[in-house]
Amino acid sequence: MHTSLDCLPCFFKQILEAGRMLGLPPASIKHIMDEIGNELKHFPLDMSPPEMAYHMQRLFAEQSGKDDPYLEVKTLSNNEALAVIDELRSIVYESENPLKTAVKLACAGNIIDYGAFPSGIDVQAEITGILQQQGMSTDTDSPLFEFNAFRQALKSARRVMYIADNAGEIVFDRVLLETIAREFPLIELFFVTRGSPILNDVLIKDALDCGLDSVATVVSSGSKTPGLVLSKAEPAFLKLYHEADMIISKGQGNFEALSDEQGPIFFLFIIKCEVIMQHIGGAMRELVLKRNS
Amino acid sequence: MHTSLDCLPCFFKQILEAGRMLGLPPASIKHIMDEIGNELKHFPLDMSPPEMAYHMQRLFAEQSGKDDPYLEVKTLSNNEALAVIDELRSIVYESENPLKTAVKLACAGNIIDYGAFPSGIDVQAEITGILQQQGMSTDTDSPLFEFNAFRQALKSARRVMYIADNAGEIVFDRVLLETIAREFPLIELFFVTRGSPILNDVLIKDALDCGLDSVATVVSSGSKTPGLVLSKAEPAFLKLYHEADMIISKGQGNFEALSDEQGPIFFLFIIKCEVIMQHIGGAMRELVLKRNS
Repeated sequence: MHTSLDCLPCFFKQILEAGRMLGLPPASIKHIMDEIGNELKHFPLDMSPPEMAYHMQRLFAEQSGKDDPYLEVKTLSNNEALAVIDELRSIVYESENPLKTAVKLACAGNIIDYGAFPSGIDVQAEITGILQQQGMSTDTDSPLFEFNAFRQALKSARRVMYIADNAGEIVFDRVLLETIAREFPLIELFFVTRGSPILNDVLIKDALDCGLDSVATVVSSGSKTPGLVLSKAEPAFLKLYHEADMIISKGQGNFEALSDEQGPIFFLFIIKCEVIMQHIGGAMRELVLKRNS
Repeated sequence: MHTSLDCLPCFFKQILEAGRMLGLPPASIKHIMDEIGNELKHFPLDMSPPEMAYHMQRLFAEQSGKDDPYLEVKTLSNNEALAVIDELRSIVYESENPLKTAVKLACAGNIIDYGAFPSGIDVQAEITGILQQQGMSTDTDSPLFEFNAFRQALKSARRVMYIADNAGEIVFDRVLLETIAREFPLIELFFVTRGSPILNDVLIKDALDCGLDSVATVVSSGSKTPGLVLSKAEPAFLKLYHEADMIISKGQGNFEALSDEQGPIFFLFIIKCEVIMQHIGGAMRELVLKRNS
């Protein structure tokens, strides 16, 4: 997906909000804005937003003097989400259609963006709201929620690769992967993290901390961007990627980076910005489960 | 008033929205963002927002190939507001406290920002809403609405200078000036425009088109910024400025430019952004009539 003109003001807003969340002094935040402002002319709009966001995050590391400025936020997110994992499992296994419920919860995990809401949000209320958003027992598909195609793809898949997004959220992903493993025990599952610290995106350590290795093989994509840009991923990972017969791409960043790629990709996220909304034709906060054609 | 870090993302948002309103192609809008991005490092935060906005507007003129890209918008605004002038006068003269009502209507004029709402808004509904916001018959003051001090200053003033803001809005200013002229017939009134096209700010022509010359002496400040920056105004105007014994500064842009100046200035506007809200301690859409100390 290309970067929209609308993304550019949003980059500066992100610098401001993330800078404050990370406790940077105003002069450092202004410096990051100056630097990104200066680089703007070298950012063609046919780059994807994650590629542009990478430069911004590099400056956060530089200004904070920390290789992983979001480390504390990520640990907090993981712990908060782990505290409700049994509740998530109960919701899934007691529902009429556990796989569908698990998919929706994974979407719910995507809205609970601890990066965007550093002071924490009401996890329980968010989950309840999202579960109520669409009838849980119906199996009707919509153009943006291709659940039947998703289940069908799982039926014939042998290797499924799940490309992760944020810390905290991955606990919700774990419950979905557990549900897939229960219903399709022959599938080999891979859980893919970023290659190095970028925003509050998950690293191998987060995946292990949240027990993803109990249900999937945890691998790093080598990607440094907040969204998996294939042209910048590690060759060893790419080999694995191309061997998978189904890719589940989680979150907006991965959608932005992978939406123009060919292949058996299912995008799973919740619409959190106007640009995405206009791009795929949904509504704000709509759940998306969309197959790449 | 200094520029807040929060203003910087807002500048880029303004480029996007104004660029689209003016019908510029995406490449031109991106070019303006690139240029402003590049200049960001030369914008210290101790400049006022209007000084920073000036550079942006210069680029709009350059990219649109028009010296006054907002000309049509301004003419439309003036005509729309002129169409309701008799109604505005009725509201004022039939009210219990015409001067106070006229001040509030002038605030209402400030919210009807045709620059920000190019497709037009419901003028009547906006006026009704603002008149209902505060009791019209009470004469109680608040720290942000120093009406008694305002009336008191008018009582002893001989030369009053009214520094105008946007097109359209000036019809509301005219009704206020007419009310002042009725209640204080000995006051000599000056109505001050910008010196050259900048945003949808008024020029001499707008003031004449809206009949301001029937109630005040219309003069240009020579200012090129959207907000009167005294250090950049014409010497001839500054002489007049310093001879006035009361200044009425209209709109947020003039407040941003003049709030650190000494002198008998009353600021008259409606709070339209978070930064101003935090700066003066009011609420969004609160009416402000504040004396400079």
